Amino acid sequence: MKELLAQRVLTNDTSDLDEIFKNSANPANISFAGGFPDQHLFPAAELQQAYRDAIETTGPSLFQYASTQGLPALRQKLADRMRSHASVDVTADDILLTQGGQQAIDLVAKLLLNHGDAMVVEGPTYMGALAAFDTYEPTYYEVPVDNHGMDIKVLRQTLKAHPEIKLIYTVPDFHNPTGTTLSAKRRQAMVALANQYNVIILEDSPYRDLRYSGQALPAIKHYDTEGRVIFISSFSKILSPALRTGWLVASPTLMTQLIGLKSAIDVQSPNITLAAINTYLDQHDIDQHIATINQAYREKRDAMLSALDRYFPKNVTYTRPNGGFFIWVTLPTGIDAQQLLTDVVLPQAHVAYVPAACQFASRQVKNAFRLNFTSLDPVTITRGIQQLGQLLQTQVTPKPTATWTPAIQL
Amino acid sequence: MKELLAQRVLTNDTSDLDEIFKNSANPANISFAGGFPDQHLFPAAELQQAYRDAIETTGPSLFQYASTQGLPALRQKLADRMRSHASVDVTADDILLTQGGQQAIDLVAKLLLNHGDAMVVEGPTYMGALAAFDTYEPTYYEVPVDNHGMDIKVLRQTLKAHPEIKLIYTVPDFHNPTGTTLSAKRRQAMVALANQYNVIILEDSPYRDLRYSGQALPAIKHYDTEGRVIFISSFSKILSPALRTGWLVASPTLMTQLIGLKSAIDVQSPNITLAAINTYLDQHDIDQHIATINQAYREKRDAMLSALDRYFPKNVTYTRPNGGFFIWVTLPTGIDAQQLLTDVVLPQAHVAYVPAACQFASRQVKNAFRLNFTSLDPVTITRGIQQLGQLLQTQVTPKPTATWTPAIQL
Repeated sequence: MKELLAQRVLTNDTSDLDEIFKNSANPANISFAGGFPDQHLFPAAELQQAYRDAIETTGPSLFQYASTQGLPALRQKLADRMRSHASVDVTADDILLTQGGQQAIDLVAKLLLNHGDAMVVEGPTYMGALAAFDTYEPTYYEVPVDNHGMDIKVLRQTLKAHPEIKLIYTVPDFHNPTGTTLSAKRRQAMVALANQYNVIILEDSPYRDLRYSGQALPAIKHYDTEGRVIFISSFSKILSPALRTGWLVASPTLMTQLIGLKSAIDVQSPNITLAAINTYLDQHDIDQHIATINQAYREKRDAMLSALDRYFPKNVTYTRPNGGFFIWVTLPTGIDAQQLLTDVVLPQAHVAYVPAACQFASRQVKNAFRLNFTSLDPVTITRGIQQLGQLLQTQVTPKPTATWTPAIQL
Repeated sequence: MKELLAQRVLTNDTSDLDEIFKNSANPANISFAGGFPDQHLFPAAELQQAYRDAIETTGPSLFQYASTQGLPALRQKLADRMRSHASVDVTADDILLTQGGQQAIDLVAKLLLNHGDAMVVEGPTYMGALAAFDTYEPTYYEVPVDNHGMDIKVLRQTLKAHPEIKLIYTVPDFHNPTGTTLSAKRRQAMVALANQYNVIILEDSPYRDLRYSGQALPAIKHYDTEGRVIFISSFSKILSPALRTGWLVASPTLMTQLIGLKSAIDVQSPNITLAAINTYLDQHDIDQHIATINQAYREKRDAMLSALDRYFPKNVTYTRPNGGFFIWVTLPTGIDAQQLLTDVVLPQAHVAYVPAACQFASRQVKNAFRLNFTSLDPVTITRGIQQLGQLLQTQVTPKPTATWTPAIQL
């Protein structure tokens, strides 16, 4: 029956990734692979109360069909938050509630991408975004990321060389997977380039509030003068992923179309969940909750960085993020992180990470991997990095050269 | 910025429909337009308790990321239900939990349809399905529906004439919008045709359990011998639409691909909601709840049919469904139900319905409309149908012919 499947399905092979996550779910291993929040930090009792009170207050009408755009009261709170926390001036009408940030990515891809259309992604980038984009079969242009985010010089050259590019996808805050943050100067430059080359920017910022050091920057959308930046974020990392609730900010023209697409995809998001989140925000100061989780995540990040400093070989480099969920590790050229994982890291060090290749649209970079530091406790993090570091010492330390050295004649 | 939008968005104009629903939301009108359940029948207190107990029992881990396929315990209950209520023998592995039935339709479209691919829809059909399919830009073949569901003779001719057809979309039980049910003989014939012409059948059955008279039939999937029937249903009509929870039953080959697509679209459905539904099903006999709502919906259907019999002109015909949400009304040829709605029905009778055109892929049939009978109480239904019927008497009753009749010479 394979002949009946659409082309987008036949070209999309995620079996490698499935294998990695299957191995990382093995409790005998210490997994740094998944991008999971620490479940001990979920405000479970508060959310339980919020569900109860939301149903109590609204009554049976809460269980009826509701608007596709999503609960107005919650959209209003998010509009206020966009102003106070991201320097973005919008109203509730500019916000669409989505099934997590992931659905927002899928919606924007569906809005813009015909088969073969050109778009820019970071190299590396969020693998879930690649999975979403892949189903629209775009032509990717990969722009590298350095310690200040996407390389704007390369972006400029790319846009100039390929005026058919429609979309730039970027994770500017504590980038998945490298943890780096796009500088304010580059944010401005990116918007200027988008204006110049008639491109839409998709600013994916689920980690924005999870800052453990340094100063917050305005969102890219803050610099938007022509309504061409679509901003997306999510409650997954700051409240709970199981709520499956994210939001998208877009200009009115794009919003009308996005609501139409969302309606055709799943009619609307679950109103009970949206009302529970809205009630939680009425009853609690989410910034206080975020401060609590940031304190815990700062300790975890510091534990991982200390362990990396202590146990990793000197020819292995890694990023030092100011927030978010991830650290990016680069191995010496020539080492394939995926093969290393399967052949020695999992069986000998009992540690899992996400190898580089599946995080590049090009699939070409192999000597790197992503580590998550939020899901485990500092002691386990330290032990896992020690196990991984000690193994890497035997695998990536420069071996004695094979070149023959003539004996010195005495 | 319109030049940046994908073709699928530019060709998809739903503004007519938006206008209809905006007018029908006006509380001054009696709306038979929306396909809403009666909100007085939602088991709100029981669901409130179920949310509470699900969170209590599972604890904080309920708020973490979970599997894309969805809560195993709930899938097991649905597998059991498929066996007992639809004569379909499947396991929990054959079931995928989705964001309502709508997402299941979108997933199957995404699985199968390349741009231009050929598929069969009923004429008329569920307009939300057309909205979902439209975004994949298929070539539609429209097969008419009679009192026993899709016309199998026309289906056979269509499949023979167009061997490139990949997919048949059908609502076999209390069809949206006509309310008719596909006979057992036609179900078998449809599967035989799908086998013969290598086609997949998408069996969309959200109204299956809402039977008010007559005997239940096995699902089309019951007759499936080659794993080519995908069955979908939903909790929206039997429990609550705001739960946004549906399910899809597919053979293993298709299931693997569908899970991959769902993961790229929204990662997974909200685990808290799935756990709450599962807890509700543990604590209550849903069949007893369904019997209660069926009793209420039977009265509403009977009230509408009685009012139609009493107040509608004799040259207007309508279906007499054994279940579901809808009655289909056919006006004399030449009357445009949409124009009638805008020009006289809304302003003079203050009643709303869904005109035929947007419920046909061809948009060609105009002299019909859909009435919903579940959302309002019997008294309001009777009043609304009376108002509509009295207006139709003046609009569709054969007028004195305009032909000149010579005076009789005395």
